[in-house]
Amino acid sequence: MRATTEEVRDRLLDATERLVYRDGIHGTGVDTILAEASVARMSLYNQFGNKDGLVLAALDRRDRRWMAWYEARVNGAAPNGAGRVLALFDALDDWFRQPDFHGCAFINAVGELSDPQHEVRQLAARHKQALARFVADTCAAAGLVGLDRALFLLIEGAIVAAMVEGRPDPAADARAVATRLVAVG
Amino acid sequence: MRATTEEVRDRLLDATERLVYRDGIHGTGVDTILAEASVARMSLYNQFGNKDGLVLAALDRRDRRWMAWYEARVNGAAPNGAGRVLALFDALDDWFRQPDFHGCAFINAVGELSDPQHEVRQLAARHKQALARFVADTCAAAGLVGLDRALFLLIEGAIVAAMVEGRPDPAADARAVATRLVAVG
Repeated sequence: MRATTEEVRDRLLDATERLVYRDGIHGTGVDTILAEASVARMSLYNQFGNKDGLVLAALDRRDRRWMAWYEARVNGAAPNGAGRVLALFDALDDWFRQPDFHGCAFINAVGELSDPQHEVRQLAARHKQALARFVADTCAAAGLVGLDRALFLLIEGAIVAAMVEGRPDPAADARAVATRLVAVG
Repeated sequence: MRATTEEVRDRLLDATERLVYRDGIHGTGVDTILAEASVARMSLYNQFGNKDGLVLAALDRRDRRWMAWYEARVNGAAPNGAGRVLALFDALDDWFRQPDFHGCAFINAVGELSDPQHEVRQLAARHKQALARFVADTCAAAGLVGLDRALFLLIEGAIVAAMVEGRPDPAADARAVATRLVAVG
């Protein structure tokens, strides 16, 4: 029984997302992706052109999925107000506790790509702009003015600290700072 | 005229540090290092055993150099007190404006290494512990209690934001948050 084009595509994207998140873009070879996805080399080239196209597509899907998950997690956590602002950090705590957590795939990708014009770097910048917008919208809905950049920087700091330290604590640490900033207004 | 062992060693460390910082560990091949350093393959293996040993030595030297630069920059900036605490962010601003700035070499390294036991990951964790200690000492000297973790997370967030956004602004943004936190106490 042959897999449909869409099944093959999904298997390639799943394997690429998982491997790149774990081992980085340069650390993930095409042969490893093909073996992990159980897909023939020609399918990769037919559907994505080359490894760069496949990696970009996998990270593009991750961008949309991660943002959708994060927004739903935060928006579902608490009624509008300061509680929802703090849920920005509760959602991080959930994420940091996942067994495969290894920081932000987009921060990690930029870290190994020097060319500012690289499509993956531009995708990463857009991903962070979307996150920053969501943080700003969440603050605005809570009537909190001028706090969103601070919370964004705390989120970014917590993500990399959790990765480097190998523990979820930075989510609670950043939440405590956010609580203080929200109280001061 | 033959280069001394020490000159060869320095050339290898310089080239490795520069290339790994720019292109990542997996993105930097031994051949590129040797060409950039103008060093024979045998010298690398004689002095560092293999690529892993060379990368670890280059990052170990960077850890000590970067911390020494950062501490001197902060301690030289202002007399003890809140001014010196804010200099933690002025020093970042200087760093982010350097033409070759590409985030934190240690955050970037962890991002592409999945094994928590990898020596480079352990070095990265020690590097961040040293940074966290310096931030705590700087806060303590200024009589500021309970602020150091917040400032550390803001520093980490500013570093990755400056890398992803490709601009130095996150240093000033984080400094503004720090100013607010210091004022509240």
